[in-house]
Amino acid sequence: MLSVCVRGSSLVHRGVKHPKVSELSGITRNFSLRSNNGEPRQKLVIVGSGWGGFEVLRRIDRKRWDVTIISPSTYFNFTPLLASCAVGTLEYRCAIESVRRFTPQAKAYQAWCDHIDFKNKTLTCMPATPPLSFENASAPPLDDTTTGFPGTGTTFQLKYDKLVIAVGAYSQTFGIPGVKEHAYFLKDVKDARAIRTRLLECLEQASQPFLTDEQRKSLLHFCVVGGGPTGVEFSAELRDLITTDIRKHYPELEPLTRITLYDVAPGILGMFDRNLMQYAENTFKREGIEMKTSHHVERVEEGKLFVKEQGEVPFGLLVWSTGLAPNPLLLSIGSVQKHERSGSLLTDNNCNILLKDGGEGSTDPDVFAIGDAAIIKGYSLPATAQVANQKAKYVAKKLNQVVRHKQQTAPFEFNNMGSLAYIGNWKALYDRSKAQSGPKTVKTGTLAWLLWRSAYFTMTLSVRNKVLIPTYWFLNWLLGRDLSRF
Amino acid sequence: MLSVCVRGSSLVHRGVKHPKVSELSGITRNFSLRSNNGEPRQKLVIVGSGWGGFEVLRRIDRKRWDVTIISPSTYFNFTPLLASCAVGTLEYRCAIESVRRFTPQAKAYQAWCDHIDFKNKTLTCMPATPPLSFENASAPPLDDTTTGFPGTGTTFQLKYDKLVIAVGAYSQTFGIPGVKEHAYFLKDVKDARAIRTRLLECLEQASQPFLTDEQRKSLLHFCVVGGGPTGVEFSAELRDLITTDIRKHYPELEPLTRITLYDVAPGILGMFDRNLMQYAENTFKREGIEMKTSHHVERVEEGKLFVKEQGEVPFGLLVWSTGLAPNPLLLSIGSVQKHERSGSLLTDNNCNILLKDGGEGSTDPDVFAIGDAAIIKGYSLPATAQVANQKAKYVAKKLNQVVRHKQQTAPFEFNNMGSLAYIGNWKALYDRSKAQSGPKTVKTGTLAWLLWRSAYFTMTLSVRNKVLIPTYWFLNWLLGRDLSRF
Repeated sequence: MLSVCVRGSSLVHRGVKHPKVSELSGITRNFSLRSNNGEPRQKLVIVGSGWGGFEVLRRIDRKRWDVTIISPSTYFNFTPLLASCAVGTLEYRCAIESVRRFTPQAKAYQAWCDHIDFKNKTLTCMPATPPLSFENASAPPLDDTTTGFPGTGTTFQLKYDKLVIAVGAYSQTFGIPGVKEHAYFLKDVKDARAIRTRLLECLEQASQPFLTDEQRKSLLHFCVVGGGPTGVEFSAELRDLITTDIRKHYPELEPLTRITLYDVAPGILGMFDRNLMQYAENTFKREGIEMKTSHHVERVEEGKLFVKEQGEVPFGLLVWSTGLAPNPLLLSIGSVQKHERSGSLLTDNNCNILLKDGGEGSTDPDVFAIGDAAIIKGYSLPATAQVANQKAKYVAKKLNQVVRHKQQTAPFEFNNMGSLAYIGNWKALYDRSKAQSGPKTVKTGTLAWLLWRSAYFTMTLSVRNKVLIPTYWFLNWLLGRDLSRF
Repeated sequence: MLSVCVRGSSLVHRGVKHPKVSELSGITRNFSLRSNNGEPRQKLVIVGSGWGGFEVLRRIDRKRWDVTIISPSTYFNFTPLLASCAVGTLEYRCAIESVRRFTPQAKAYQAWCDHIDFKNKTLTCMPATPPLSFENASAPPLDDTTTGFPGTGTTFQLKYDKLVIAVGAYSQTFGIPGVKEHAYFLKDVKDARAIRTRLLECLEQASQPFLTDEQRKSLLHFCVVGGGPTGVEFSAELRDLITTDIRKHYPELEPLTRITLYDVAPGILGMFDRNLMQYAENTFKREGIEMKTSHHVERVEEGKLFVKEQGEVPFGLLVWSTGLAPNPLLLSIGSVQKHERSGSLLTDNNCNILLKDGGEGSTDPDVFAIGDAAIIKGYSLPATAQVANQKAKYVAKKLNQVVRHKQQTAPFEFNNMGSLAYIGNWKALYDRSKAQSGPKTVKTGTLAWLLWRSAYFTMTLSVRNKVLIPTYWFLNWLLGRDLSRF
């Protein structure tokens, strides 16, 4: 149940009686249980709608597989664009894709997966929608895929023939007090909206006539903790916003704004080539983004950061991005092998999970784990969208071959396309030094930035967003970003 | 203070100590107190950023007037598009224009106006931004426009030479219990967002496997109270959503959806030509929108409507649009003449307010009242955007003539351009029977719909929205609306 307890929105589920489980026929009636070649369709359940789960949903043969996706959100977050959305360079919906694009062909439930029973191939799920005020309806049992969960009406069960676990990870706070309460993460479009709203609120608060400039400075101090790509790209986008629209429409406030980027490490963008790191740091210094590397945040209170090396630091907005924490669902899974440090599920190089019993090397051929929640034993890869996306493509291909009775594919191999990070002012870093194929180049500047932006168009995005994103980029470049807060 | 107490968001202000008022120089420093022809600039204060206030802000000569706008929101709501935003035909920001478009040339404070002292030409304002956690700063007095309000640090004062009151009205609930708690209004883009979010939530809740179709029907019963243009247009847009995207992506739920439109009157769209009313009613009947005219809602509880003629009616979403209630600010104004029934400010036909003392006909030449908060004595006009917009144009022109020492303009005269209402399925009503100029025609159907849509482009909208709106119309027509809920 942990996966529920950690999310505020789900706490309300507790103690509220859902009606007992009832027939699913209303949902499934129309969809034949046979594939178009006449064989009974196997049930594929995908858990999670992120870089891993959504890509499998997109690529799987939904005619031959009876597909169900379980996710607490009804959309996929195109994470590289969230920083842009958080400052209004893009509108929120440009950074998401709805899972409903694939319904009713695939089934979708907005729900948490609370427990997996690998022996009986059954998932226990809990709705991620608000509880209903209805009386209990004594309902008939569900169809063969879904049965009532004894003892409670708030959960339901799903059976699977094949399962893809792609639940991702949570944000790491290292248990620092006050972070969850007073900092904003940047993993979901909801976070981007909250950050943009708070950002504009700071400006309106600072515009009130009765403040001293000292007070305005505190409100307009924007802190970012975490010098990885997310923290760096957000700082860069924020800097762009300040030097354009804030300078134009709040000229008296702009000189009072300040961006500070904190990290415990001695430098930012640790995973990048040394020269690129240096380039980024110099750019940030020149742009007036204060870098407090080798600094340690010890406590956060409302509007106050407590830093070991500095003491009390007032802020108006705090964005937190210091890596990943294991998804609580993984803690509830006992019978499988996990990575010691990260707690991720260990898989073989076919992305099948490894079972504890049966000793070394015994895998569950029906269960795949991909994305930030999974690590291939002895083949450590970065926890990036790129890896999750490639594993998803691999698993989808494998599963499509299963229903076509074709040869299994070769083991998974990561094809490193290199890393990109936007550092503001139409510039980006592009590091292909670790790339398997193509030139092992290291680029900076606007060319890299263009590569960075165009890179997105070859990816997961729908036609809608392929039209909207350039439209917004152009309009906001030409007319400035919208500064309305609502 | 009433204007504060009625808005939940403002309640938090109570009991929280703002720092004492301090110098405004940080905000005003850069803006000369002289107009470009060398004379000292007069101070114009606009209260409200709706159809009246925003239009004055847009049209006033901001070089010759020292303009300040006070509004609890930082944007103008283009209300005719809110119904489209509420169902996802348009994105929210297409229906708003930021007042920040006109800063720093004009000053803008996100604040409530709590009190007006006509004798001393002073407004008392209260920030509409969340209170600050700062210690009191003992600050110097404000500049000559702004002084501390004795006894409290949470408000500030503004002086004016000319004042435009355009605070609009609130939603009418007739004191029916439960409406404020359980119904959605549709006056602000925030409302549109809340409605869309709830709408999609109903669909995801109804998709949970453990519900009976009875329960699904209750969740998918969408009630609209109020048969005016807002209620009718929302019902129509909702019907469009159901017959397109919901039918496509939730085919099993679509037959369970229901729209019911309630009104106490015997018919809908009372202000329209009889034939058009009839046409609208027939269209709605054909489209399966249930019309419960001459019905009286007595009480609302969570998910339940209590109707005199029906008893208990379960619903998933309730939208409420039954006319206007006076803005609390007006109640706090004593010394002026008001309209008996509506409580609006009475003005002469120059839109100047009428004072109580000094007997009949004594006006305040420095104070204008326009929009839903004002009525010209003996010249009753509908409380529509069109009237507010025309009065705003009239007042802006008058004020621009003042600074140019030109002749005053003639008294205000309303030029009725006719009324439009969208009734779904690419059709609209267009009633010019009361129009002063042009053909006194009465149109229905798609041509009227085209007029209706193109009408918006000649209006208040910015270039950004003139590009975005057709883009979204086209994309959503081509690809369907986005069904992600966040």
